[in-house]
Amino acid sequence: MTSDTVAKGLEGIIAAETELSYVNGQEGILEYVGIPINQLAEQSSFEEVVFLLWNRRLPTADEFESFRQKIRAHYGLTDHTRKLIAHIPASAGPMHALQTAVSYIGCVTPEPDVTSPEMLRRHGMSILAKLPSIVASFDRNRKDLPCVEPNPELGIAENFLYMINGERPTEAMAKALDVCLIIHADHGLNASTFTARCVASTMSDLFSAISAAVGSLKGPLHGGANERVLHLLREIGTVEKAESLIREKMARHEKIMGFGHRVYKTHDPRATFLKTLARDLAEQTGHKSLFEISDRVEQVMNELVASRGIYPNVDFYSATTYRSIGFEVDLFTPIFAVSRVGGWVGQVLEQMEDNRIMRPKAKYVGPHGVDYLPIDQR
Amino acid sequence: MTSDTVAKGLEGIIAAETELSYVNGQEGILEYVGIPINQLAEQSSFEEVVFLLWNRRLPTADEFESFRQKIRAHYGLTDHTRKLIAHIPASAGPMHALQTAVSYIGCVTPEPDVTSPEMLRRHGMSILAKLPSIVASFDRNRKDLPCVEPNPELGIAENFLYMINGERPTEAMAKALDVCLIIHADHGLNASTFTARCVASTMSDLFSAISAAVGSLKGPLHGGANERVLHLLREIGTVEKAESLIREKMARHEKIMGFGHRVYKTHDPRATFLKTLARDLAEQTGHKSLFEISDRVEQVMNELVASRGIYPNVDFYSATTYRSIGFEVDLFTPIFAVSRVGGWVGQVLEQMEDNRIMRPKAKYVGPHGVDYLPIDQR
Repeated sequence: MTSDTVAKGLEGIIAAETELSYVNGQEGILEYVGIPINQLAEQSSFEEVVFLLWNRRLPTADEFESFRQKIRAHYGLTDHTRKLIAHIPASAGPMHALQTAVSYIGCVTPEPDVTSPEMLRRHGMSILAKLPSIVASFDRNRKDLPCVEPNPELGIAENFLYMINGERPTEAMAKALDVCLIIHADHGLNASTFTARCVASTMSDLFSAISAAVGSLKGPLHGGANERVLHLLREIGTVEKAESLIREKMARHEKIMGFGHRVYKTHDPRATFLKTLARDLAEQTGHKSLFEISDRVEQVMNELVASRGIYPNVDFYSATTYRSIGFEVDLFTPIFAVSRVGGWVGQVLEQMEDNRIMRPKAKYVGPHGVDYLPIDQR
Repeated sequence: MTSDTVAKGLEGIIAAETELSYVNGQEGILEYVGIPINQLAEQSSFEEVVFLLWNRRLPTADEFESFRQKIRAHYGLTDHTRKLIAHIPASAGPMHALQTAVSYIGCVTPEPDVTSPEMLRRHGMSILAKLPSIVASFDRNRKDLPCVEPNPELGIAENFLYMINGERPTEAMAKALDVCLIIHADHGLNASTFTARCVASTMSDLFSAISAAVGSLKGPLHGGANERVLHLLREIGTVEKAESLIREKMARHEKIMGFGHRVYKTHDPRATFLKTLARDLAEQTGHKSLFEISDRVEQVMNELVASRGIYPNVDFYSATTYRSIGFEVDLFTPIFAVSRVGGWVGQVLEQMEDNRIMRPKAKYVGPHGVDYLPIDQR
């Protein structure tokens, strides 16, 4: 690379060191602090994974109990924040609502701008705990349903479902959501995590950084992709139509949502795990046909593009899983935020340990030395 | 640079092409679309500079009249947005309030997520026009003063001062603020502009991108620096104390705010221009001693560090200028946002013309292949 090469999309540029997630796109490996994602999905919990990402080791039993209790103590929203959420129109996108509410919590939290490691952790815990409450409150408001108070006896995943639906979920649903939160929690320098690091690198506060990351995750090329997968599955409608519709789209060079990844050139290890989860859950919840359509789409795509290293990504089976759990389509990306905030905060903590402001260069390609021409001479 | 070198702070990395600002740090040159910043500061207006940054050419008289009228038609805030601002406590930082309000406008704007060039311009115009109204409303609310309706017969700078103070500013003040808005409007891939591009690169919306940029600009290492300059000047207090206090701070290796710049290794062309402005204005508004302290600090720093390429940056004389105009210290960074939004929107427009999602790599430096140990075995 010569000194004036533009690194478009920053592809190939190493922007930071991390001890959180190891992503090996060639071999399809994802580890958090060295532990394979499948082991964590099978044996850990989202809260424990957050502890792992913030402390780079697993907690002892006592530490974990204390950590969980602190998170649960932060579930509740203040009256101020509830009113703010109620003031957001039902027509607003939930990610817009979430970004606004996180930023607003920075307005009502004492000392939001203190960025010592202790305060970053405290603010991080508050944001982590409140994200599901914000999403659920907004969703209940727009459906004209009363908001459900968080239940501090429940973990994040179960409590989230309880606040959304007003009743406790089945164990299988709570576990499925917990697994989804685990596998989405961190993934290298994806665009939203990188956005959080950029904001934090100016020594701005955590509310600003996480609010910005929410705005970044919202994009259709990033977190918004899982919503578009469901739109595709709905457009297909039945298993029988899958093959012809996919072949038509491919012939028109349309992007098939949920396939391919900048990093993974083989199976996305998260997708492999999710597929099993999606199948089990779809069967239990009466969404079997949705899973079957997904499965057929994967087969067709496999024939068409697997040879080019294009496989289903984490978004593809997330869509079926979230729909089977009962979430509205436009809450898929907010769920992603509820999970990824674990990584956002963890990586901001890393950034601040050895910070340098993110200030790349631009290559100027315009004219030089142009004289200002007064308006009456143009 | 080898393939696993970490580009800390992305220093030296070219992340995008731009036709907006040309920054030559070695020779102290800043041009917008080829026109030297001094010519623009002397002969143009902020609105015209925004047109220049969004269209990469100066407008004809008719185009400019139409552009100005459109901006002015967007000055007003809806009742919804006014209520949101009134719901932000007086104790909140104005940048937190601004970030929240921009995000909120994304909740109440129809089709916020349409990112066609036409819609980006329309949304950009709305945000550009409303930023001063948000800042002024928040500032009036916290002072228990009635909000002042924007006056669509005034330009952005003059109207901003009118809404802040409740009376029309002198011509000299309006001109001084207009010049400050011109010279702060764009500056390559600074952290906030880069943040806006990162968010937009996911195909997220402009409200998300600009809200994120506000959060980034807020950082003490970026836009927040100008506020800290005033704190320094106030700490010094009198011209006589300047030399000893600066020498003491330098001996303790403390950072002297307002000096040095990652890019400029010679005089910052904006600072040179600002100094004259600050002197004239300080004399007219009874802040002569503030200017004299600044001038003395510059002399002392010049003796100490000019040989190392450290000169006053744009923040240094901004502080005196803004204070002379009558702004509260914590509005200095919001003023910066009111200006820089011109560059943020202009660079998002550029980003979207040839977009690729910003997804750098992280270098993983943690352990590998660690087995998950059940909690009772730790």
